[in-house]
Amino acid sequence: MAEPLITWRGEVLGQWCDYNGHLRDAFYLLIFSYATDGFMEQIGLGESGRQASGHSLFTLECHLNFLHELHQGETVEVQTRVLAFDQKRVQLYHSLHRPGDGQAVAASEQMLLHVDLQGPRSVPFGDASATHLNALHRLHAQLAQPQWVGRVIGLPPPRP
Amino acid sequence: MAEPLITWRGEVLGQWCDYNGHLRDAFYLLIFSYATDGFMEQIGLGESGRQASGHSLFTLECHLNFLHELHQGETVEVQTRVLAFDQKRVQLYHSLHRPGDGQAVAASEQMLLHVDLQGPRSVPFGDASATHLNALHRLHAQLAQPQWVGRVIGLPPPRP
Repeated sequence: MAEPLITWRGEVLGQWCDYNGHLRDAFYLLIFSYATDGFMEQIGLGESGRQASGHSLFTLECHLNFLHELHQGETVEVQTRVLAFDQKRVQLYHSLHRPGDGQAVAASEQMLLHVDLQGPRSVPFGDASATHLNALHRLHAQLAQPQWVGRVIGLPPPRP
Repeated sequence: MAEPLITWRGEVLGQWCDYNGHLRDAFYLLIFSYATDGFMEQIGLGESGRQASGHSLFTLECHLNFLHELHQGETVEVQTRVLAFDQKRVQLYHSLHRPGDGQAVAASEQMLLHVDLQGPRSVPFGDASATHLNALHRLHAQLAQPQWVGRVIGLPPPRP
């Protein structure tokens, strides 16, 4: 059965919380950034793969929706899907959950670029990574369309 | 003459840099988050204003473009404009610059919600904040349209 990858699981740290006692916006993205590291492990671009190839992923662009507050000490996990990819780019969808809860507390759509760190310059994925991406993309295409994708920021229309 | 606000200036810290020696994606957003704090100071929602009113801003949604790498020890500043606002929301454009350099190294469009921390529940801006927002919005409307707004994430079209 098709399932998103689980790419990070851990606890909300006190140093990530703001004056309101809530997880600060930037640290939702830090959790998603760690989830991207977890994703890289799964496509052959973990630490040993990066050292062997000199290749890595750079984040080009991301969108974030902050849906619910989180507090210090809560355990959360990130579910990750491959939405699309081409020779050098991969488009991911990360959603943050309390374990066992289907409703996301935050979501992020991201575009990542495969780079040779010598340069740095963009280069095509290696064969092993491309094979992983293709398999994950086919698997995740079976899932229901994620909610927080393709968004443009703007005020809601005024009420009548 | 119309100018964006300068809402944060500081140095890229070593603890914000990743295994590539570059500022990690999440810490660009932390800098923009500090810039939002600086913006709040300027519209009467700094620490003393928050304590007096019990009101604050929550980030609902943001979009980030990572345009250039930054390294530990570099000095950067954030320029901030009010793109739009309504009774309870403000849409900001933050851009990150090396001081004196018009070209941004990153940009973020953000939607923020004004909340009463008792609840928390959304509430209209107070009169003082609304007056500041109106003045800033009129001023910033005189500036050239910012580059990294209204974006949707997606792969570029394949080359012919």
